[in-house]
Amino acid sequence: MDRRKFLSTTAVGAVAAGALAAPAIAQGLPELKWRMSSSFPKSLDTLFGGAESFAKRVAQLTDNKFQIRVFAPGEIVPALQNLDAVQNSTIEMAHTASYYFVGKDPTFAFDTGVPFGLTARQQNAWMNHGGGLQLMREFMASYNVVPIPAGNTGTQMGGWFRKEIKTLDDVKGFKFRIAGMGGQIWAKLGAIPQQIAGGDIFAALERGTIDAAEWVGPYDDEKLGFVKVAPYYYYPGFWEGGAQLSIMVGKTLWEGLPPFYQHVLETAGAEVNLDTTARYDAVNPQALRRLVAAGAQLRPLSREIMAAAWKATHEIYDEIAAKNEKFKKVYDPWRAFRDEQFLWFRVAELTYENFAFAASQTVK
Amino acid sequence: MDRRKFLSTTAVGAVAAGALAAPAIAQGLPELKWRMSSSFPKSLDTLFGGAESFAKRVAQLTDNKFQIRVFAPGEIVPALQNLDAVQNSTIEMAHTASYYFVGKDPTFAFDTGVPFGLTARQQNAWMNHGGGLQLMREFMASYNVVPIPAGNTGTQMGGWFRKEIKTLDDVKGFKFRIAGMGGQIWAKLGAIPQQIAGGDIFAALERGTIDAAEWVGPYDDEKLGFVKVAPYYYYPGFWEGGAQLSIMVGKTLWEGLPPFYQHVLETAGAEVNLDTTARYDAVNPQALRRLVAAGAQLRPLSREIMAAAWKATHEIYDEIAAKNEKFKKVYDPWRAFRDEQFLWFRVAELTYENFAFAASQTVK
Repeated sequence: MDRRKFLSTTAVGAVAAGALAAPAIAQGLPELKWRMSSSFPKSLDTLFGGAESFAKRVAQLTDNKFQIRVFAPGEIVPALQNLDAVQNSTIEMAHTASYYFVGKDPTFAFDTGVPFGLTARQQNAWMNHGGGLQLMREFMASYNVVPIPAGNTGTQMGGWFRKEIKTLDDVKGFKFRIAGMGGQIWAKLGAIPQQIAGGDIFAALERGTIDAAEWVGPYDDEKLGFVKVAPYYYYPGFWEGGAQLSIMVGKTLWEGLPPFYQHVLETAGAEVNLDTTARYDAVNPQALRRLVAAGAQLRPLSREIMAAAWKATHEIYDEIAAKNEKFKKVYDPWRAFRDEQFLWFRVAELTYENFAFAASQTVK
Repeated sequence: MDRRKFLSTTAVGAVAAGALAAPAIAQGLPELKWRMSSSFPKSLDTLFGGAESFAKRVAQLTDNKFQIRVFAPGEIVPALQNLDAVQNSTIEMAHTASYYFVGKDPTFAFDTGVPFGLTARQQNAWMNHGGGLQLMREFMASYNVVPIPAGNTGTQMGGWFRKEIKTLDDVKGFKFRIAGMGGQIWAKLGAIPQQIAGGDIFAALERGTIDAAEWVGPYDDEKLGFVKVAPYYYYPGFWEGGAQLSIMVGKTLWEGLPPFYQHVLETAGAEVNLDTTARYDAVNPQALRRLVAAGAQLRPLSREIMAAAWKATHEIYDEIAAKNEKFKKVYDPWRAFRDEQFLWFRVAELTYENFAFAASQTVK
């Protein structure tokens, strides 16, 4: 290739272009006004804000020809009906966590993260270069949905407990507000999972109708005030070692989009995917400090409970895989990928983190 | 806002648009042909490939009006002259690691990562929501450069050693091929840092002219064949808990770009930032397996050496900050941010990882 053909005339060109008031991009492309329903209330501003940042970027990259308006849960679609709404084209897109839809098929959980699953960073490796995204798109095709990774909370906290639990005996009959596969695991350990809507959790904890409730992490949890009524703040949320958010696009619509718009959605999705985790990581430390100052007592889940949970988790996977071909099709390669990730991350990354994170607290 | 104004006509619009052969975007925008010199050889395909993916995405998002051609080191500019070349407009962009330029000012190191610094994920939090990117852009303004984060290797390995080192006594006189601030730390511990170009390392290790050499991680290291002549594979590379790559854009050119092109570069940068780490994470585990099969013997750096390195590192920071105002301006807020990150990550994330990563190796 002749290098001189790439000689730049940009200094002049760029300055001239900068003088354009509004670049006339996207001519000839359709003007789209899409609605994206979020499964997350505006109070979860890291998540809701991620959807808004995404929409803003899509507008910037298309000279406002592709406009996405973000709606809070219930404005047009309730939080947990977003999949149905995208599937039947009531809305064009949703910002959600696919594991809300495990009632339809537990395979959805892999798009978010499963108990004792991948960390945020490992999930990106799995989705982008481990075959994960392709498997998820194949799986969701029958639901008329194309998922785009769009955020990750990182490892969540285990939740707010009214009393300490140390042994499996303590877990027996323990009433824990926890949904999805996490609830199934705790049930195997002897707890009684409770399904309670977000707005009713505080009262149930205060009255003692439930013993504990899990939510997300320090920054989101702080807003709900659980520390006042259930001060033991357990970690880690082993059922959410990472929780990826997804933008679901109607598949028929997706396939009708000009490739340019598809590229825009995928690139903007990657940006918000990284940025949402960055936002959480930036705000969680100070929130945890405030919670501890307000009386939160940090407690790690005991090794006895963690080990039993590990065992129960993999028994559940084997049970589901034995009777659900779609689940097994994802689980088998996912499991192999996970085990390799876990092995490698123990070497450089975890050794570094264990030493440095501890040293920074002792040496000033 | 009237919700009906957002009612969608997209099903029809999108299908019609899909029929367009080539969307006529970017009309009225300047055609740019920019050259981006990489500091990484093509053999480091994760890094060089990241630059190529970035260039491809920029072309897709601009209907090929903004074309970036990626050059290997030496094709137009040697690897370590990329900063100068962008600064004086010999090239428009570079894909590099800013810490290559600590000889000009050690403050550059914060754009990549410093010893006992932030992990890949924490670096994103610092850059996007901790003030890091703004500080780096302010600092580099006087070099006529605008940096865009564009990849991260994750925690690197410590390197390939011909013999085992366990105590600080073993480090005395130890000839270690290591550059930058990492080299300064090892020098403080008694080692003799060596500067040897990549292509000459193998021969030096084989002859015993040096005792050890560090490079990146399993996937990149494997290609250089060090395992044959220096089988002890130490970890972690505490001087690179994360190493961010950056795309440097000439500041004058950047400011002359239409905002649309700036948005494209930033969004595509975020995508390649996430994706480069994902690529490394996906390919490193298998490379490590192959290296171990080829005779690599994994060794953690001893606690004695790590603790002495931690102390030496912070002494060096204090020394530089005492005489370099620019360094101090970044170091002070960075240090506070780092310590908060390290404290928080010990809670949910690290507790999860320590348990789960180990459990996956023992329970099958």
